[in-house]
Amino acid sequence: MRIVLFGTGNLATRLGIALRAKNADIVQVYGRTCSGASILAEKLGCSFSTSLKEIDTSAELLILAVSDEAIAEIASNIPVGNRLIVHTAGSIEMDVLAPYSDNYGVFYPLQTLSRDREVDFSHVPVCIEANHSFNLEKLNQLASLLSDTVVRIDSDQRRQLHLAAVFVCNFVNHFYSIGEQLMLEQQLDFDLLKPIIQETAAKVLQHSPQSVQTGPAVRDDKTVMNQHLKMLSDHPEWQNLYSLISKNIKYLHP
Amino acid sequence: MRIVLFGTGNLATRLGIALRAKNADIVQVYGRTCSGASILAEKLGCSFSTSLKEIDTSAELLILAVSDEAIAEIASNIPVGNRLIVHTAGSIEMDVLAPYSDNYGVFYPLQTLSRDREVDFSHVPVCIEANHSFNLEKLNQLASLLSDTVVRIDSDQRRQLHLAAVFVCNFVNHFYSIGEQLMLEQQLDFDLLKPIIQETAAKVLQHSPQSVQTGPAVRDDKTVMNQHLKMLSDHPEWQNLYSLISKNIKYLHP
Repeated sequence: MRIVLFGTGNLATRLGIALRAKNADIVQVYGRTCSGASILAEKLGCSFSTSLKEIDTSAELLILAVSDEAIAEIASNIPVGNRLIVHTAGSIEMDVLAPYSDNYGVFYPLQTLSRDREVDFSHVPVCIEANHSFNLEKLNQLASLLSDTVVRIDSDQRRQLHLAAVFVCNFVNHFYSIGEQLMLEQQLDFDLLKPIIQETAAKVLQHSPQSVQTGPAVRDDKTVMNQHLKMLSDHPEWQNLYSLISKNIKYLHP
Repeated sequence: MRIVLFGTGNLATRLGIALRAKNADIVQVYGRTCSGASILAEKLGCSFSTSLKEIDTSAELLILAVSDEAIAEIASNIPVGNRLIVHTAGSIEMDVLAPYSDNYGVFYPLQTLSRDREVDFSHVPVCIEANHSFNLEKLNQLASLLSDTVVRIDSDQRRQLHLAAVFVCNFVNHFYSIGEQLMLEQQLDFDLLKPIIQETAAKVLQHSPQSVQTGPAVRDDKTVMNQHLKMLSDHPEWQNLYSLISKNIKYLHP
């Protein structure tokens, strides 16, 4: 299946590299800037274009690995014909592509991706959705090339999955940042926190997080919580978070 | 060094087992209840007591791996003499033990511990503090038996370390719980989130969390954030958290 890949950001880069490593036939990369498109095209050993009018017409699958706002804009400006066209976004419904082709779907890898960090796609769940079973089967074949976990979910589920991922990934990473800053303030090495970060993540591989909650809030240890709130007096926004989350933890563990 | 271990909770259990595995000489376990004390004593192959008046007087080191409130209470009710006595608490200052012995300190393993989950102590940072250099050296020897990472920190630093751990462990685990519940609501398997949880934790082994922040807040993607807030309308407390944290992330990444 000849593929044109749209986008040159984190997702397009990691997805393109992973597909290429499995010998998927990426024939062209589209990017808005010459530098972005050419760098990725070189990594993938294919041609590139910065013009939506010069998309390779031999392609059978168009993958829009672009920002949410760019999906409809790009789809409406390329000669889609009846090619299978998919986007890769967590929070955009599949039907946004309906006006542009009879064959459309979603190819959503659930992972936090950085352009310069390698990721083993075999462990990345790929969530697929399509408007026909034969399109779904095509996406299934492509996704199975990459990953051991391919799941069919609908747009509502994908949106919820994305929301859950914001909590367990983006917000969690922000808390790692807060931890890093608290350590700095007392001349402590952030490395000291790494084992507890790893263990906290490893625990949920085997246990429901609800069942392994630890800390002052679940013990309702008011002395420690009050001490912590006082220590956060220079950071009213963290103090606020501390109160709210502790209250929620207590509420979940009456 | 002959040791009496006070406590039968998560920390006492995991610490006792880890010390025993390194052939540390635990001669007695103290617990408030006969069942708790006898179960741990059997695991450690030592005697046990439920009376503070019957503590083994041959001991050279007393480890109070008990709740914060119990530390002074126990210390004031045992014949400490001039034995080295330490507690294991993150948020209690060392000097709480000053009234009871000329030799005192803190032995604080920084990890989230569950009674029934094995943990490799060689990766657990052990933070030590003592009132004299010769006591510190004794604690250093014991800690080095267990762990590759032994650090000397003072009571203020330990308190801050504990606060940081609440953010990167206890609060993070609560966010895993929220993720689990959001998945349930849409009949999605929590397993789908496990790779992104692991990768988010793995990333900070090599990168400052601040430098690898991803998600709608750092992109200032108002469309997705508003959609997420709407989806959380049945959970006003999570909605509130979502707003606050997104605002903080934006603030850190102007």
